[in-house]
Amino acid sequence: MEDAKHSVAFPRRWWYPACRSSELSGKPLAVPLMDRPLVLFRGADRAPAALLDRCPHRNYPLSLGCVTEGALECGYHGWRFDGGGTCLRVPGLLDESTAASSNRRVSSHAVVERDGVVWVWGEPDRRPTGQPFPLPKVEGPNAGEVVFHYDLDCTMHAAIENALDVPHTAFLHRGIFRGNTAHRVTAVRRDIEDGIEAQYLGEPVGMGPVRLGRRSGLTFDHWDRFFLPSIAQVEYAVDGWFRIVNTILHLPLSPLRTRAWFIVRFSSRLPVPVVRPIALLRGKQILLQDARVLAAQTERVRSLGGERFTSTELDVLGNGIWRLLRRAERAETDGADDTAGEPEGDPRQPEHAVTFEV
Amino acid sequence: MEDAKHSVAFPRRWWYPACRSSELSGKPLAVPLMDRPLVLFRGADRAPAALLDRCPHRNYPLSLGCVTEGALECGYHGWRFDGGGTCLRVPGLLDESTAASSNRRVSSHAVVERDGVVWVWGEPDRRPTGQPFPLPKVEGPNAGEVVFHYDLDCTMHAAIENALDVPHTAFLHRGIFRGNTAHRVTAVRRDIEDGIEAQYLGEPVGMGPVRLGRRSGLTFDHWDRFFLPSIAQVEYAVDGWFRIVNTILHLPLSPLRTRAWFIVRFSSRLPVPVVRPIALLRGKQILLQDARVLAAQTERVRSLGGERFTSTELDVLGNGIWRLLRRAERAETDGADDTAGEPEGDPRQPEHAVTFEV
Amino acid sequence: MEDAKHSVAFPRRWWYPACRSSELSGKPLAVPLMDRPLVLFRGADRAPAALLDRCPHRNYPLSLGCVTEGALECGYHGWRFDGGGTCLRVPGLLDESTAASSNRRVSSHAVVERDGVVWVWGEPDRRPTGQPFPLPKVEGPNAGEVVFHYDLDCTMHAAIENALDVPHTAFLHRGIFRGNTAHRVTAVRRDIEDGIEAQYLGEPVGMGPVRLGRRSGLTFDHWDRFFLPSIAQVEYAVDGWFRIVNTILHLPLSPLRTRAWFIVRFSSRLPVPVVRPIALLRGKQILLQDARVLAAQTERVRSLGGERFTSTELDVLGNGIWRLLRRAERAETDGADDTAGEPEGDPRQPEHAVTFEV
Repeated sequence: MEDAKHSVAFPRRWWYPACRSSELSGKPLAVPLMDRPLVLFRGADRAPAALLDRCPHRNYPLSLGCVTEGALECGYHGWRFDGGGTCLRVPGLLDESTAASSNRRVSSHAVVERDGVVWVWGEPDRRPTGQPFPLPKVEGPNAGEVVFHYDLDCTMHAAIENALDVPHTAFLHRGIFRGNTAHRVTAVRRDIEDGIEAQYLGEPVGMGPVRLGRRSGLTFDHWDRFFLPSIAQVEYAVDGWFRIVNTILHLPLSPLRTRAWFIVRFSSRLPVPVVRPIALLRGKQILLQDARVLAAQTERVRSLGGERFTSTELDVLGNGIWRLLRRAERAETDGADDTAGEPEGDPRQPEHAVTFEV
Repeated sequence: MEDAKHSVAFPRRWWYPACRSSELSGKPLAVPLMDRPLVLFRGADRAPAALLDRCPHRNYPLSLGCVTEGALECGYHGWRFDGGGTCLRVPGLLDESTAASSNRRVSSHAVVERDGVVWVWGEPDRRPTGQPFPLPKVEGPNAGEVVFHYDLDCTMHAAIENALDVPHTAFLHRGIFRGNTAHRVTAVRRDIEDGIEAQYLGEPVGMGPVRLGRRSGLTFDHWDRFFLPSIAQVEYAVDGWFRIVNTILHLPLSPLRTRAWFIVRFSSRLPVPVVRPIALLRGKQILLQDARVLAAQTERVRSLGGERFTSTELDVLGNGIWRLLRRAERAETDGADDTAGEPEGDPRQPEHAVTFEV
Repeated sequence: MEDAKHSVAFPRRWWYPACRSSELSGKPLAVPLMDRPLVLFRGADRAPAALLDRCPHRNYPLSLGCVTEGALECGYHGWRFDGGGTCLRVPGLLDESTAASSNRRVSSHAVVERDGVVWVWGEPDRRPTGQPFPLPKVEGPNAGEVVFHYDLDCTMHAAIENALDVPHTAFLHRGIFRGNTAHRVTAVRRDIEDGIEAQYLGEPVGMGPVRLGRRSGLTFDHWDRFFLPSIAQVEYAVDGWFRIVNTILHLPLSPLRTRAWFIVRFSSRLPVPVVRPIALLRGKQILLQDARVLAAQTERVRSLGGERFTSTELDVLGNGIWRLLRRAERAETDGADDTAGEPEGDPRQPEHAVTFEV
């Protein structure tokens, strides 16, 4: 990445999270997808639809209009469009049957609503392949969920690397997330389908200043995972005690701005009303610290004309995530693979173990 | 316009409105003319003058200085200039007679004050031809005037097209300007000297929800007109009842920012003190709605890299206005006419009729 | 300078003032040096150090971290660096002795602390030559000092020319600095080592409206001086009565933004507690007027695409300062001297006299 500006990759033939189902009601919703302004709305039968947010007439943003009779109506001259982008009506035209002229069509994106999320296909006017990433089910007598989101001032890659980076949690989030004493852990990194994961071995159970591991001998089951194109997932469990899976859906708003939804699902021996507020509070505290760091990192990279990163073996997943993103992008254009010459600490073996202290 | 960025044309050998006479008193006034900073002031005998707003010494804006003894004085070192841009004085120089050196001359624009408006010639250091656009007289027992202005975030062309566009009034200004029921009208478009006009036939008399046309059989006399380089004019009349002429003077501040003065003159059977506040209130209401729409249109065009407009026969004047502006600009550089390949709905006949509903 | 944009020169093999000693305590301090972000901190033995403000790991600004055990610690993952830029520690690495890998080195600048100022060498990773500019000593029974600073929105050259320009003081600062009546003075300009100076002869003693010169026959000893790369100095004295030396240290933050420290040292027949508040108040008044003028000048030059300056013989030092800056910059790259074709009023004789009125 020595000569690159920022690590920006945007593979298009994938599903991206556009909004939560609950955000999309009777009004159109503006959602940028990597600098492409989209408008989402519920058309006929309340099915979600996504169009380029630009009226073909005078280019007024359709998201500033309204939804009328299952159609999206432009706020300037009242032109109406269905969920597929076909023009249904041009007010004033004597013969309205001529409205659906091909030069009045708006570019559209395939949409799927699933797991309470509206997903859009990254490439316009294309039939999608496959399904969006399935949110994991966490079941049990005390199963619950908290969700929050944030717009991060950084590349999607930086956001994902941060979400799956263990060493900074022991430093930046010291006191909230991890304790003050170091423990030797081993990370096993392995390729998975359309992704990469790291499994952590030997991590003593604890949270913040409280560390039970030493005495109890208990260790976490802990996995960090990345799934193309934009999903990060952190799973912690202690068998028989609790399981928590934080799935982070990323939407690249622009090269240097990334929306992240944190969908935290858990079950434990404690009642949900006890766990929920703690998970929400801690989650948001950690998020705000990370958001500040990522914004400052982005600004510094920008002001100095590009990334100049150095990695160590402690950067377990970052380079592998970048390689996957870049390959996915290249596969769509049949271009050459330019992910050769990776920095240290990221051998390409399908499975690789590294030991360090956190 | 498919490949263009924005529809920006600036024919220079024309008169542009710079300010109202009442705005120009004892202080210099900064006025941008298509990104060229001008300073206006009243020089000897209070005659208005327009100079490039830059002192030739250290480039301090002359508009931040003051007017002294009929001269414009720079606020940094006190150099003084007359209305023609000649340097009159350099404080400190032992021999002040040498002040008027040619390398101390400031570029100037011809100025005419007429109808309460200060007009500047678009090209610097050139003798103008012709006269500024004459404001229409509206006479009668109850003749009056209201004036207001606004800086619109859009191209001059977008502002003018919007001012003379009928269909959006029935939609965007619904309830204020036009009613809820549609009426069939015919627009006759014809070329006029240095301009283009549309005459509307069959438009029932009414305003907002009140429509008298159906019962009374009364129809408006209604013309929309464009005059090079920057004048839009809307005239409504009902013979023997009232006449209202809204002349909109546009000053292109920059490619995407346009100052508009709305000079509304009217006569009617009602007393002026009754009509004035209504005209002012309604006018400003409509203006604010249009200003919001035009700013959003501009922002969307900008964010998507250029205009992608589609026209219909309902876009009666927009393309004709663009053709006139572009031709006027080209005529000054003897360049080729690149207004070929117009969108639909704008045949080039000198007179053409189209019928639609508003 | 006709074709140039702004007069921006940045000779690198010189000492620049980075901050006052008192500004640098236990926390890292971010200081831009011509768009290069530096972080200053006190390392081992509290010796000042200057590094590029970017962690080599993930490019987080080191200035957002803290100083720990004489090392600068990054706020993201806790990497630590000494004052020379060597990495001392990577938290988590099992073998910390490997931390000081060469690809983890941060670029550093030589630093000298002298006269209460922390000076940095303009070129990174280079051994400096020579010493920083020595602040003058002003001795006597009532010797004192006032210091203030400001970030000016202008080039370093414009700031220095303004600081050493006499004619504008009689106009812009009229009433504060000079009086209303003009006096004939002669400026003798001469080359000095790494600089240029003007000596003023015949300037009657006075301040603001008070002018003693006429009656008393007393005249100021007055010198204006420029020293490469960024020092302006104004000295006024009346033998046996008072001496005041205002040394202005400039730090180019970016091409169009310049930090200036005004270090005013004086001795007089009046007690220091009387002189200090007057010097501070008058100094800041004058500074604010200049800051406004310089920002407006910069904005006008920017908006019109470059400087178009015209000079007279009253511009005693400005062009000479520019020539010195440009030559110093060129000498480092062995490039051609492009300061030929100077404007009027700046003959290249080593000594030259001009008479004018202030």
